[in-house]
Amino acid sequence: VIDPADRGFTLGDGLFETLLWREGALRDLPAHLARLSEGCRSLGLPPPNPEAAEAAMRKAVEAAGLEGARAAVRLTLTAGSGGRGLDRPSQLSPSMVASAAPAPPADGPARLQTSRIRRNEHSPVSRLKTLAYLDNVLARAEARAAGADEALMLNGAGEVACAAAANLFWIDAAGRLCTPALGCGVLAGVVRAKVLAAAPSLGFEPLEVREPRSALDAARAMFVTNSLIGVRPVGALDGVAVALDPRMEHLAALVAR
Amino acid sequence: VIDPADRGFTLGDGLFETLLWREGALRDLPAHLARLSEGCRSLGLPPPNPEAAEAAMRKAVEAAGLEGARAAVRLTLTAGSGGRGLDRPSQLSPSMVASAAPAPPADGPARLQTSRIRRNEHSPVSRLKTLAYLDNVLARAEARAAGADEALMLNGAGEVACAAAANLFWIDAAGRLCTPALGCGVLAGVVRAKVLAAAPSLGFEPLEVREPRSALDAARAMFVTNSLIGVRPVGALDGVAVALDPRMEHLAALVAR
Repeated sequence: VIDPADRGFTLGDGLFETLLWREGALRDLPAHLARLSEGCRSLGLPPPNPEAAEAAMRKAVEAAGLEGARAAVRLTLTAGSGGRGLDRPSQLSPSMVASAAPAPPADGPARLQTSRIRRNEHSPVSRLKTLAYLDNVLARAEARAAGADEALMLNGAGEVACAAAANLFWIDAAGRLCTPALGCGVLAGVVRAKVLAAAPSLGFEPLEVREPRSALDAARAMFVTNSLIGVRPVGALDGVAVALDPRMEHLAALVAR
Repeated sequence: VIDPADRGFTLGDGLFETLLWREGALRDLPAHLARLSEGCRSLGLPPPNPEAAEAAMRKAVEAAGLEGARAAVRLTLTAGSGGRGLDRPSQLSPSMVASAAPAPPADGPARLQTSRIRRNEHSPVSRLKTLAYLDNVLARAEARAAGADEALMLNGAGEVACAAAANLFWIDAAGRLCTPALGCGVLAGVVRAKVLAAAPSLGFEPLEVREPRSALDAARAMFVTNSLIGVRPVGALDGVAVALDPRMEHLAALVAR
């Protein structure tokens, strides 16, 4: 249970990670813990003890009886209770909570809908997985209401940023693999990094770009990535069909290793 | 206690109100409840029952033994537990929590420091008092680290927006009372509305404006407002002294009624 005075609850003052549990292991655990520690540094929170974090997540998987399943494991770290209003207490007592739930694989290609809610590239929060996730919740709801299943989010400058719960990649007209630069206000996704690293082996020149929404109209193919779905092709954007590229399956297999 | 699966905790999916308890009453209760209901409509949450909300707040004041004190009363309303990832459950079970704490009056004029963290005018969240408040926490911490006690936040377009936990007003060179328009990404403050309504009786022409940071260099006086501090003069901005105007005291007295 959570203290109602926990700053994670009252102010979104905290971070989380979502990991895939598969074949009895927490996938990409070191990368997730490294990102969490980096986020703590950015927010001024003490980084978690890696062993304690891993133990909490394993315990959550066991408590949910999901040892043999494909599961989403969430680790939440908050600034804890205390302080007055926005001001944190001088001595922080962070809270750590882990939970696990079944995570079925993605259900076919994603249908994206451009959201009217923009990412705030002028805040470090847009590059971190923080508890202040309401923009993403609203963007997703907007996409669902439009008959799509995920949102495409631009940033304040109108540049392509990401999906509500995933990073975005596309193959441009010149055959290059593009993804928005972190400065566009996007999360440094664990799978995003793996795709960028694996791309050259598939003959792709990977590029981190700042591009307007119109750049996607010329894309040959598109996919979204996160730790739970891996690489998921995009089948439609704003109601317009997007072609599938067989190399996406190779990328999916590479990053799933 | 809060369920660790509560979406208010996991995603910032909820709203809050902070009211002043003074002389045995919840100040401006109807305005706060109206704003909360409006926010619920915007976020797609069922609005709270006003009687239940008031009862919860009164109970919190009593439980804290603050009936005879000046207190800050916080009412938090979340989307409750359930759903999968960003997607809300089809049937929402909102949570409501109230708490109370002593609230001493403001400690002299505020010293503001311009934050590098911007308000996101491209999201409804910037106009609501949501649980996704981390930008404000970080902006405040940045101001404190710079020796100030509150942040001045601009929006993505570089327009003046608000303080981290207050609305902002200034008297311009022509003697007009200016405050950023809601479209700049600011909260529709309860005291902000009272100041706008009271201004003409003090000979001010109130204006809701979209102005760059440089507009403040020519300001004759400046103040911030919220429900706990009422009207608080600004004594310095970015280390430069700002003059005080005696009419601010009259405004403070008017809105404190």
